[in-house]
Amino acid sequence: MTSKPTIGFAGLGAMGFGMATHLLSQNYPVTGFDVYQPTLDKFQSAGGVPATTLAASAKDKAYYIVMVATAQQAQSALFDTDAIVDNLPQNAVLILCSTVPSAYAKSVQKELSARGRDDIAFIDAPVSGGAIRAADGTLSIMAGASDSAMEKGKWLLEELSAPSKLFIVQGGVGAGSNMKMAHQVLAAIQILSTSEAYGFAARLGLNGQEVRDKVVGGKGWSWMFENRSLRTLTQDYFPGASAVGIIMKDTGIITSTSRLLSYPTPLVTAAEQVYFSAADRGYTPNDDAGLVRLWTETPVTDIQSTLSDQEKSDRLDLVVQLLTAIHLVSAAESIAFADHVGLPLQQLYELASEAAGGSAMFKEFGPRMIEVLEGRGEDVKIGSHLDGLKSAVEEAQKIKCPLFLGGAALNVLLAAGKGGEVGLKGLLGLYTVS
Amino acid sequence: MTSKPTIGFAGLGAMGFGMATHLLSQNYPVTGFDVYQPTLDKFQSAGGVPATTLAASAKDKAYYIVMVATAQQAQSALFDTDAIVDNLPQNAVLILCSTVPSAYAKSVQKELSARGRDDIAFIDAPVSGGAIRAADGTLSIMAGASDSAMEKGKWLLEELSAPSKLFIVQGGVGAGSNMKMAHQVLAAIQILSTSEAYGFAARLGLNGQEVRDKVVGGKGWSWMFENRSLRTLTQDYFPGASAVGIIMKDTGIITSTSRLLSYPTPLVTAAEQVYFSAADRGYTPNDDAGLVRLWTETPVTDIQSTLSDQEKSDRLDLVVQLLTAIHLVSAAESIAFADHVGLPLQQLYELASEAAGGSAMFKEFGPRMIEVLEGRGEDVKIGSHLDGLKSAVEEAQKIKCPLFLGGAALNVLLAAGKGGEVGLKGLLGLYTVS
Repeated sequence: MTSKPTIGFAGLGAMGFGMATHLLSQNYPVTGFDVYQPTLDKFQSAGGVPATTLAASAKDKAYYIVMVATAQQAQSALFDTDAIVDNLPQNAVLILCSTVPSAYAKSVQKELSARGRDDIAFIDAPVSGGAIRAADGTLSIMAGASDSAMEKGKWLLEELSAPSKLFIVQGGVGAGSNMKMAHQVLAAIQILSTSEAYGFAARLGLNGQEVRDKVVGGKGWSWMFENRSLRTLTQDYFPGASAVGIIMKDTGIITSTSRLLSYPTPLVTAAEQVYFSAADRGYTPNDDAGLVRLWTETPVTDIQSTLSDQEKSDRLDLVVQLLTAIHLVSAAESIAFADHVGLPLQQLYELASEAAGGSAMFKEFGPRMIEVLEGRGEDVKIGSHLDGLKSAVEEAQKIKCPLFLGGAALNVLLAAGKGGEVGLKGLLGLYTVS
Repeated sequence: MTSKPTIGFAGLGAMGFGMATHLLSQNYPVTGFDVYQPTLDKFQSAGGVPATTLAASAKDKAYYIVMVATAQQAQSALFDTDAIVDNLPQNAVLILCSTVPSAYAKSVQKELSARGRDDIAFIDAPVSGGAIRAADGTLSIMAGASDSAMEKGKWLLEELSAPSKLFIVQGGVGAGSNMKMAHQVLAAIQILSTSEAYGFAARLGLNGQEVRDKVVGGKGWSWMFENRSLRTLTQDYFPGASAVGIIMKDTGIITSTSRLLSYPTPLVTAAEQVYFSAADRGYTPNDDAGLVRLWTETPVTDIQSTLSDQEKSDRLDLVVQLLTAIHLVSAAESIAFADHVGLPLQQLYELASEAAGGSAMFKEFGPRMIEVLEGRGEDVKIGSHLDGLKSAVEEAQKIKCPLFLGGAALNVLLAAGKGGEVGLKGLLGLYTVS
């Protein structure tokens, strides 16, 4: 029927299923493995060949994609006896799309070498964009590999990504994962800022739909806000599309790297503690849009606003001010971290602007931040964002509404300002280490 | 029966009741007012004269003490029609012991003046030490006033405080409240660090009594830890002795002043969000020792440790490392804030070391911090505390245990270290504004 090569695939979760079925739609035979039988059945119905062992999924596959949830799962799937690596043919291309620590991606390359499988072309290629773009073949992909491995596997990455959204990151294996980590700094903060903003708004008496309409398209916009709003406004959390457990895992990669490098990540750290609190409430398998339940038991669309037009307008402004200030600091936290680990900043900017980490503030201030870090350009004053955040935090204090990120962002800006006017130089300087 | 002057008293809560009955025990007639009738009955049984109106409590009283909960209550009690000020005789001494913003204390002085009551000798005199010391007359008191007012009222402050624990703060009205605020930076952080430590320990499988025995007397000690342990270990939270609502109010004074001055208070801010979360769970009227319920539903003394001696010892060390690092940063946050508002640092040190804000770390590092801020002395390296905190946070991450203060303190230390060795100069420099 087709001369296209068969692809082996491990990990048919929300993202993996979308990627694998997209390849099917492009007439690639795909042999897929998952530990969960109903998923395998669904994959078979979609035209895939189910494999009940990793060995069967890998045998004779010249191309293999791993999209399991964690580095630990990847390690077992790759290197257990009679698992993937033991069964891949000579000169196979092996692509790891899971979000893992950069150090783990490098360790895979080393272990392949130690096992005498340097013939395998290994590509470290985490993705971003959500399940819908996975199924459309329009993901953002951040890939690092040797030139020879990239040459052999690039066409497959192109099948999975949108034109202009395949980012080959210089630096070899590990560079892709580092880029994903810098991107996830934005994601980890903006997933929570979405719920914090909806929660704050609910407690100000604002209806969720009105909040959504105010934020999307304005300065408070983030990709996460717009995307999660689909589920926040319909309470589609069980399981929804992106579990709290997933972002919690990514957050852990960021903060453990931060500790290792003695590098500060105050907002991601604040977010991580809230994710742990959510886990305590049993939210781990639920969609992260449901984190708003930490602030309000009433669905945000059920809130019937009794405010005057003026009051409503003022309070919506406070919500936007909360978001813009958090996203300004998240942009600095991500870009400065990327700089610290030696990533090309312009590439991060292009990638994240059009991926799940994007925000209006990132798009506006990212280029100026890069100029500051590269020693070019004037300082840019951001005092109005500090003032807006102060107003939001003051109002939240009156109604005893926790703003974990708002409070942390405020203190980053206050420390950056050193009592004077706050500029990007001061903000980035707070993150810059020797 | 006695020639001692009658004292008027408003606000017979946990602290006020102790103070008023102590004065009774010293043979002062005390006429007390409270809005809660059972409290008035109890006061009468203790030998006090109950007043059912503020007017009755103030009429003909040459000395009057206000110990209500908030500035708002004080404003109403003092200045409503036919309330305290309208009824105080000429040349009365009026002492405000409530914890209020410094700006509020100053506004009282102004309003007395505007009302033509400059004859009243007003003293801004917040206290610390808890209900037991209130009843013993051994409180710590931080008092600011004009020289003439202080001369007239000092003897009464001496009745309420321990020898050497009456601190006359230079700067007039408002200076006492500022000193209290700097002290409460320590209190606000260390009340929560107590529960965070017990909660972390519980989730590490450690029994609460063993945690208490390890911490008290060691480097992780704080006055709050030792004091709250009495109630943590007996689950004496309903209502206990010091409500979450009280420290939440004090935290609000700190963070609103912080916003006003554009001054960073990252740990107090992190603590405040947790206090708001606790309020969401209905904890506001409960003792703050019960905040440990944010981490564990099982009482900490019910945890039967199944760990080996070595495991137990290692994990207890992690708990101590968490506390020491938080208390090191809380000392910096308090002392630098005091410096910023122009308080005498040595006086804060003497006061807080022996009051509710005390900790082993404050006692050890406070003098070195003051030297650094005064431009004297060598830098002191504190890298071992950063390493200890990293270990604690890493372990907490593995078991998904939120460490709101631990995470915030870690990021303060990482930002202070700028990638190199962390010293007191860097730590205080993070707080120092122009």
